[in-house]
Amino acid sequence: MSDKLIIFDTTLRDGEQSPGASMTREEKLRIARQLERLCVDVIEAGFAASSNGDFEAVRAIAAAIKDSTVCSLARANDRDISRAAEALRPAARARIHTFIATSDLHMEKKLRMTREQVLEQSRLAVRFARNLCADVEFSAEDGYRSDPDFLARVVEVAIAEGATTINIPDTVGYAIPELYGEFIRKLRERVPSSDRAVWSVHCHNDLGMAVANSLAGVTIGGARQIECTINGLGERAGNCSLEEVVMAVRTRRDYFGLQVGIDASQIVPASRLVAQTTGFVVQPNKAVVGANAFAHASGIHQDGVLKARDTYEIMRAEDVGWSANRIVLGKLSGRNAFKQRLQELGVELESEAEVNAAFTRFKDLADRKSEIFDEDIIALVGDESVTAEQEYFRLLSLSQHSETGERPHARVTFAAGSQELRAECDGNGPVDASLKAIESQLSSGAELLLYSVNAITSGSTESQGEVTVRLQLGGRVVNGVGADPDIVVASAKAYLAALNKLRSKTERVAAQG
Amino acid sequence: MSDKLIIFDTTLRDGEQSPGASMTREEKLRIARQLERLCVDVIEAGFAASSNGDFEAVRAIAAAIKDSTVCSLARANDRDISRAAEALRPAARARIHTFIATSDLHMEKKLRMTREQVLEQSRLAVRFARNLCADVEFSAEDGYRSDPDFLARVVEVAIAEGATTINIPDTVGYAIPELYGEFIRKLRERVPSSDRAVWSVHCHNDLGMAVANSLAGVTIGGARQIECTINGLGERAGNCSLEEVVMAVRTRRDYFGLQVGIDASQIVPASRLVAQTTGFVVQPNKAVVGANAFAHASGIHQDGVLKARDTYEIMRAEDVGWSANRIVLGKLSGRNAFKQRLQELGVELESEAEVNAAFTRFKDLADRKSEIFDEDIIALVGDESVTAEQEYFRLLSLSQHSETGERPHARVTFAAGSQELRAECDGNGPVDASLKAIESQLSSGAELLLYSVNAITSGSTESQGEVTVRLQLGGRVVNGVGADPDIVVASAKAYLAALNKLRSKTERVAAQG
Repeated sequence: MSDKLIIFDTTLRDGEQSPGASMTREEKLRIARQLERLCVDVIEAGFAASSNGDFEAVRAIAAAIKDSTVCSLARANDRDISRAAEALRPAARARIHTFIATSDLHMEKKLRMTREQVLEQSRLAVRFARNLCADVEFSAEDGYRSDPDFLARVVEVAIAEGATTINIPDTVGYAIPELYGEFIRKLRERVPSSDRAVWSVHCHNDLGMAVANSLAGVTIGGARQIECTINGLGERAGNCSLEEVVMAVRTRRDYFGLQVGIDASQIVPASRLVAQTTGFVVQPNKAVVGANAFAHASGIHQDGVLKARDTYEIMRAEDVGWSANRIVLGKLSGRNAFKQRLQELGVELESEAEVNAAFTRFKDLADRKSEIFDEDIIALVGDESVTAEQEYFRLLSLSQHSETGERPHARVTFAAGSQELRAECDGNGPVDASLKAIESQLSSGAELLLYSVNAITSGSTESQGEVTVRLQLGGRVVNGVGADPDIVVASAKAYLAALNKLRSKTERVAAQG
Repeated sequence: MSDKLIIFDTTLRDGEQSPGASMTREEKLRIARQLERLCVDVIEAGFAASSNGDFEAVRAIAAAIKDSTVCSLARANDRDISRAAEALRPAARARIHTFIATSDLHMEKKLRMTREQVLEQSRLAVRFARNLCADVEFSAEDGYRSDPDFLARVVEVAIAEGATTINIPDTVGYAIPELYGEFIRKLRERVPSSDRAVWSVHCHNDLGMAVANSLAGVTIGGARQIECTINGLGERAGNCSLEEVVMAVRTRRDYFGLQVGIDASQIVPASRLVAQTTGFVVQPNKAVVGANAFAHASGIHQDGVLKARDTYEIMRAEDVGWSANRIVLGKLSGRNAFKQRLQELGVELESEAEVNAAFTRFKDLADRKSEIFDEDIIALVGDESVTAEQEYFRLLSLSQHSETGERPHARVTFAAGSQELRAECDGNGPVDASLKAIESQLSSGAELLLYSVNAITSGSTESQGEVTVRLQLGGRVVNGVGADPDIVVASAKAYLAALNKLRSKTERVAAQG
């Protein structure tokens, strides 16, 4: 059996499906470029048939990415598969990933189909996909809770029709490592043509064991592809975390004996980009990418660590891309230095006009903040990436005041298209007053689900504050992100950014968990 | 073998040891009470010999807790063990937990001791501890990387001297489930008197497998105690997470067949209390206790979930203490209702004067915020719990203003003991200006390691903002927490709270990882 372990990243599909983590086309494209730098083997870019927005995102990623295979999810029907193939047309390497549920519970309650119907639909779907694409993955949704005999029949049919990868997800995060590994091993034994496909695992983290389950699927089960996401992003408790599973395989190469193609030094930059884009924070005690994950990253050297680093550390922080927070630019930096740094950070702005606009904001920031870190630049460009047609609402100016014993008060001026709107309001705090002022003019009716603040660069309140505002309206959930050294201004920007996203309506269908 | 699995919580010892997670005596006491409500079998309350503060915290917890065993860590020497025994004297049930490193790397680099010296010291330490306490746990630090033959000799000696629990930690988080389970199984076979002690596992999460490793230690290795922390708090990537390991054992009782005494409905309240106290946020995609951990907690019902809940959910949110965010009190609520709610939340204030002070703050908050949630009350009381002697610095009033095109400006008045200090300053934002104003008077020289904001109650910026400020000065790291509907005020409170903690100097020694 091959010792190459395929890393299939689904941050942009299963991760993005997490309530509140939806991303724009530009955001997805930026993350896809980072995944390519990370050298993931397969990027699942989206679910093309679920919405026009998703279709466009998959197509843009297919056109931009050269080194990784680009994949789209599709339900097991001709329309979904056609849309996936169409979106993937520009790809250097494309994969269609079609799925159908195989557990009795899902077939009965969700699909309302019989076993024979599911078997037949699997056959037709893989056949149809294989005529459009040489690389076809077939997933049996809720596979781990499926009847093994029936599942083996479905898989045999999928391989016979030309599926090149067979994925057996633990959709609900119910598995235990040894049980999941054995399940896959026995299933492979039951399928006569099992050697003609690569087997894949896709684990959810509801009981905190997604990484161990995935690895048991590999060591015991013989799988050679792991589906995972940056920061373990994903619905509910999320998916198997890419950084943990990759570093486990590398750190314990003595045991696993597997090759992974990942450039681990891109892990921390990828983690930060995903956290900043989605507003899903990474807890400090998160393995590999948490702020405290390495003893010396906290600035404190304990006795033992000083005496010998490997008494407490099994990985080196540098290996996964933790570097000292480098000061890269300041107010004297020129446009070329700025542009070059953007390239090093993997940010590709679409036009010179966008570079110019970002540079203007950079100079503005450098006037107010003496040390500009990589994170500042990413936030600055994130701000910038809302393209003109989407940026209907725009903050023009804000003035606020609070004083002990008085109600905080804010005045906000913002653009709505070509109109200039002014509003003022009291609130419980200056942020509350500012958001209420905006709402007093717009009456959007959106419900605020989340308000969160991240200091972008630790070490000083001189840092920019980055605010994420999550709004819900009519069943849609969007995130708006705003950055500014003034937290009140950042909040108002974030609120308007979320309203901009709510304006661009897209309908989506739900995919597999 | 017994089917009872002992849950040993070390949030207050190994968790608190995480850089930045240090807690005051009052904070620890509050968490210990919540752990007792959670029905953990053993509460490791601290490391009595490490500092006077830790000694006092262990003693206070030993006096307050009746239903759980209270434990103190101690290095394998008479002084540490005496201090532990002394601190534990008021306990209804006490345990002394003594440890020494047994891996060649740790013995050579950290302890600078030979194998025979370590063996002899283990013998003497357990003998000494057993004379002071009937319940003695012995831990072999870095046990998983120790030579199995040597480790077996050490364990045999510890059991011969009367150790009732033997703990084999994976101190650096290097283990893989099946390897760790086998390691423990073989070790137990090598130790002739292994049946005379309960075996215990203690796993770190550096490779994301602490939960699976702990469970393999139980199923394969035969351990019957798991050491864990709330939210997986702990150094680096943290410890095995209590909520995940407990819910895995309960959800998969079909496989594990083990009994745990935990009242799972107290899990989410415990998680919130620990997160609020330490300022260590829980990421939304954290299993069991993350905001998104349950599909329907996000406010979004997907098609599949609507059709049949168990298509995507293997646990019920209610079972782990997720309840709708209950409005418990408002401005019309009286002192008795407030006091009763405090009791239901498990908050025990030390004196009527403290209750009165908290009630005054509650009324003040109720004037500004129409709906008061449980989280608001906990934050309010957290604010209150800094006792008078510690509250040297106190915010009196704050006024701040920011306006587009001008430098944000703040004026702060605060008490320093009996003195009243006034200061004003510009800054990059109103928070920066406020903190700089304070610093302009005090020149503490403290370095800001972290600034973080949590909205205490989601759903509205009317919520109080809760700010955590982490400061470092002369190698000490402290957290200050401040809550207020005005984020700038909350920030100034948090900064002063951290300065109060820095004033109360304590020296501590490092314990095992």
